[in-house]
Amino acid sequence: MDNEDRERLKEVRGVRIAANMSVDGLVRELRDCAFGAGRLAEAVDIYEDMLKENTTKFLGIAGAMVPAGMRNVIADMIREGYVDVVVTTGANLVHDIIEALGEHHYKIVEDVDIAVDDVWLREHGRDRIYDVIVHDDAFARLEDFLRGVFDKLARKAENKRYSITELLKEIGENITDNDSILRCAVARGVPVFCPAIADSMIGLHAWIYKQMRPLKVDVFDDMKELISLFCDAERTGAIILGGGVPKNFIFQSALVAPAREDGREGFDYAIQISTNTPEDGSLSGATLEEAKSWGKVGSNAKAVTVYCDATIALPIIMAAVHERVDRK
Amino acid sequence: MDNEDRERLKEVRGVRIAANMSVDGLVRELRDCAFGAGRLAEAVDIYEDMLKENTTKFLGIAGAMVPAGMRNVIADMIREGYVDVVVTTGANLVHDIIEALGEHHYKIVEDVDIAVDDVWLREHGRDRIYDVIVHDDAFARLEDFLRGVFDKLARKAENKRYSITELLKEIGENITDNDSILRCAVARGVPVFCPAIADSMIGLHAWIYKQMRPLKVDVFDDMKELISLFCDAERTGAIILGGGVPKNFIFQSALVAPAREDGREGFDYAIQISTNTPEDGSLSGATLEEAKSWGKVGSNAKAVTVYCDATIALPIIMAAVHERVDRK
Amino acid sequence: MDNEDRERLKEVRGVRIAANMSVDGLVRELRDCAFGAGRLAEAVDIYEDMLKENTTKFLGIAGAMVPAGMRNVIADMIREGYVDVVVTTGANLVHDIIEALGEHHYKIVEDVDIAVDDVWLREHGRDRIYDVIVHDDAFARLEDFLRGVFDKLARKAENKRYSITELLKEIGENITDNDSILRCAVARGVPVFCPAIADSMIGLHAWIYKQMRPLKVDVFDDMKELISLFCDAERTGAIILGGGVPKNFIFQSALVAPAREDGREGFDYAIQISTNTPEDGSLSGATLEEAKSWGKVGSNAKAVTVYCDATIALPIIMAAVHERVDRK
Amino acid sequence: MDNEDRERLKEVRGVRIAANMSVDGLVRELRDCAFGAGRLAEAVDIYEDMLKENTTKFLGIAGAMVPAGMRNVIADMIREGYVDVVVTTGANLVHDIIEALGEHHYKIVEDVDIAVDDVWLREHGRDRIYDVIVHDDAFARLEDFLRGVFDKLARKAENKRYSITELLKEIGENITDNDSILRCAVARGVPVFCPAIADSMIGLHAWIYKQMRPLKVDVFDDMKELISLFCDAERTGAIILGGGVPKNFIFQSALVAPAREDGREGFDYAIQISTNTPEDGSLSGATLEEAKSWGKVGSNAKAVTVYCDATIALPIIMAAVHERVDRK
Repeated sequence: MDNEDRERLKEVRGVRIAANMSVDGLVRELRDCAFGAGRLAEAVDIYEDMLKENTTKFLGIAGAMVPAGMRNVIADMIREGYVDVVVTTGANLVHDIIEALGEHHYKIVEDVDIAVDDVWLREHGRDRIYDVIVHDDAFARLEDFLRGVFDKLARKAENKRYSITELLKEIGENITDNDSILRCAVARGVPVFCPAIADSMIGLHAWIYKQMRPLKVDVFDDMKELISLFCDAERTGAIILGGGVPKNFIFQSALVAPAREDGREGFDYAIQISTNTPEDGSLSGATLEEAKSWGKVGSNAKAVTVYCDATIALPIIMAAVHERVDRK
Repeated sequence: MDNEDRERLKEVRGVRIAANMSVDGLVRELRDCAFGAGRLAEAVDIYEDMLKENTTKFLGIAGAMVPAGMRNVIADMIREGYVDVVVTTGANLVHDIIEALGEHHYKIVEDVDIAVDDVWLREHGRDRIYDVIVHDDAFARLEDFLRGVFDKLARKAENKRYSITELLKEIGENITDNDSILRCAVARGVPVFCPAIADSMIGLHAWIYKQMRPLKVDVFDDMKELISLFCDAERTGAIILGGGVPKNFIFQSALVAPAREDGREGFDYAIQISTNTPEDGSLSGATLEEAKSWGKVGSNAKAVTVYCDATIALPIIMAAVHERVDRK
Repeated sequence: MDNEDRERLKEVRGVRIAANMSVDGLVRELRDCAFGAGRLAEAVDIYEDMLKENTTKFLGIAGAMVPAGMRNVIADMIREGYVDVVVTTGANLVHDIIEALGEHHYKIVEDVDIAVDDVWLREHGRDRIYDVIVHDDAFARLEDFLRGVFDKLARKAENKRYSITELLKEIGENITDNDSILRCAVARGVPVFCPAIADSMIGLHAWIYKQMRPLKVDVFDDMKELISLFCDAERTGAIILGGGVPKNFIFQSALVAPAREDGREGFDYAIQISTNTPEDGSLSGATLEEAKSWGKVGSNAKAVTVYCDATIALPIIMAAVHERVDRK
Repeated sequence: MDNEDRERLKEVRGVRIAANMSVDGLVRELRDCAFGAGRLAEAVDIYEDMLKENTTKFLGIAGAMVPAGMRNVIADMIREGYVDVVVTTGANLVHDIIEALGEHHYKIVEDVDIAVDDVWLREHGRDRIYDVIVHDDAFARLEDFLRGVFDKLARKAENKRYSITELLKEIGENITDNDSILRCAVARGVPVFCPAIADSMIGLHAWIYKQMRPLKVDVFDDMKELISLFCDAERTGAIILGGGVPKNFIFQSALVAPAREDGREGFDYAIQISTNTPEDGSLSGATLEEAKSWGKVGSNAKAVTVYCDATIALPIIMAAVHERVDRK
């Protein structure tokens, strides 16, 4: 290994497993590994750096994180200050509210490949998300809850035009479950963005409600807030779970921001956890390098993609980060 | 092979390649193949059935279809009546407009793995989408165009509140390029839905415009139209490219529709082309069987998922469908 | 677009679908597309170049190509001179022989997600390969056939030590079905390599046979032939279906060959069709660029990876190649 | 949730992250999660069960586990009795020997997407495996070492015919590094199978050696031992990393074994860690359910597939297993 190499290469050292390792103890062992292991360890290092700087941290949530059991992880990330801004799919909010209402998600215990007959499930009022089942009753309770919230809003001010973020804040204020992502966000003052809210049960119930009474929600009104959050930040970080609309919506907030005085532009830190790969040209699988060509991620940003199911990688990363930077 | 088998199994017969096969000639050969080949052939059969019935056909477009060169395929699908409703990501509209304005997408000729230095691209005003390059100039022209449209709208009626579909119709009416997806849709009366429009350059330019003058676009106002399109249809079909918001938004239109008189509910036909697989629990990769548990796809629907890059599968399917049902 | 760009970039031009397009007519339309479409078209161009030069063409076959219905495509590739050397998994040979014996593969007509109960299949003597079923009877016939061949070999020369390639040639000479891959290869003088032959039903039946009588097959004896085929070739091309052992075994034949007089080393042409992507570090998903670092693929080779189910991409490529270079 | 449900469903409970969790503490939290998280936790439970019974445990190793840094994990699994039989690709043995000879693997520190120019690497004697670099020197040392071993074998008995397992045992006995997988296996009496050994640098060096002196290695001779290991076991378990030949070779050992007295057939336990999914029909991605149709995995086996990069999942599983069953 000559000098030129030394700068760009480091020796792969084998992980050694010991009994009773802490999660971060294991992650530190993975630092000198390659492939996914090395990337996972790098994600923890980047998150640690993010937390040690005065960084505004944007969390993007796509994929059925709540039905899979990641609700507490995410709610605690908000509650304990590991994230400052949330951009999510509507579905994760829907399932968060369902749990806040006392309803549950159920996991198919037998192998999903054999235990499932979706026509039978339909006939029995069960809805499937891979190996998770939700009962139709849960959605009925969601409808009652949302109708109540919409009615309250109408009573307060029938003609008020809300931004999506404001609407979600109003909904969050009607949630009492302290484990709710939306409740935690409202309590902590963390804004929640959901640009594709129409594409969720919230959208459906808004449609039903609007058959009777007005409910005005503007699709662009909260962009100013998101972009300001980026512009006003000293440093910016993105934690992207699964791609989709949240990924792009977070990154595009960097597109219109002027460069910093020191020339920095784009996100300073970025962690992406996704099972999508770049080869099909999809945005979800696009590399963080590609994001640099757009100025979404800074040229010198610390950035890593962990190609992994987020239900595996997120708990590991958060457990390791907790060991290093405990905010409780 | 006993009788029970005969009903559920059919013999795999090898494809035989001949010179000068038509695309559908090849696809017909794939019918008795398994894995992806069989599914591709089944997709063509289902599309043919859809077209022979009085079916309202919903097209969902996710992934960078326009930058990859699928713009004419999609515009022609609309123009020639192969689809009746479009639900798309904002990005595909942005890139459609860019081409309508005379700007181009460029393909990196050398291998994308070695030819690309994203920091260099950034410094030289180029933006990358996998192996496609767009120049910053193209986005500058987009901005001028959109500002012009927004100004026109303001002059017509400053305080009018648009639905997203109405806004897109207004934009489409300002496009003169007959190869434009949006232009074709307006010309043909095909409504275009884009629930996550804020998550695109259109969103960014709306934000910039709104710094100066009002532009009111409601996030829920066009749901009524989408749902009516589903409810009023004699039969319904979905062609889903790549998952994402368009997939779910199309399918959720079925969730609130009452069952048909003959008991049918959900989509009667569904074709999904995606590189996502179900194992990570994502909606994009969810099977059409899973969609049956929700009532999104009918219990007896003809439905198939082709696990394939849509830039490969879509042209093949459309070329084969054209041979069978020529609408020109 | 400045001059520098012109060399590296070309305009993406939209595919236009016409009725009654030939397969190559469509593929030519895909040439100026990006993502998978562009790569598929490039694969056809590279194959055409390969055929126009005096190229020794190595075909690697992994994945269940024969059960899926690709047997005739591959047999015809051999018969008509589109390939000169075959490296395969044992399984594809096993299933080729099964069909040669008059047995069949069956496709599950209903959706594989719901129609399958693997425990039931086991109880009823059916073996599943995704959506393909083989009956236990087929393997019983295979056993009889192989035992007959092994007996013949023993009668000819009990203590002869065969290379794997020689053993396969002996087997192929006992096949009468002209559609058999192995039969075609023997008839055409195309050597068939199968380094992991022990990892197949042929291996199992060899083991059973060896309980009674000797059968000596050396694992390294045919490497000389493979390497000579590479070294003696004027130009070399690889068509890799699905990765695995065949991919590496083909490429490693280039590792020990001296550079050509003109400095060329490694394969001159390479086409890889795979659903594996590089991000997990697997050899199957490794890029052809990576192969250049090893000298497996030449620095100036024409090489492309089509990320696609081979049952879709192979028939399209072969139909298009037939239109350009008809060898029948 | 009615009674019928209770048997098949269990409530998804959210993971809660605490500071200083042990790896198994975290894994236990994942037990009531869905998707990948639940499957990872189930893998640990199954491994624990395997270890508590008198189970013969077969480890299949595909993918570049050693270059990625998993060498110690695997060597310790052998040393500490977590596995009893190893089936591997040749490449993992090659890279194990390279490290045993004091050579190293290096990781590219910068992002692999930008830091890599494979033609430059070739010119500078570096070989790439995704983000790992090996120097040509390492392979030169391998050649010297293997030549030495082959010479020793020739001196011992020029005409002896080895099985692959025997050859690997001889090689292992010449390794002095106690961290070597092959050395540990020999020391512990764990047989190592490598059916595709010809498809590796060991194969290449055998070929070079055989130009001068005989080296006879039979491809089928060690199948008897593998099958006996299966047949003689009270209970059998498979831990499959990454699919490929090792996966099938392990499972096919169950195909010819008679059913147990209690009717059991196939593997009693199976854990599969893979990024491959079943949709393309490949053996690597085939489900363990599919394996039941063949009798490779028992009808009542405890079996789970973790769809994950093995460099992430394996260390987690092993750290958690160590906490539960410490064999040191």
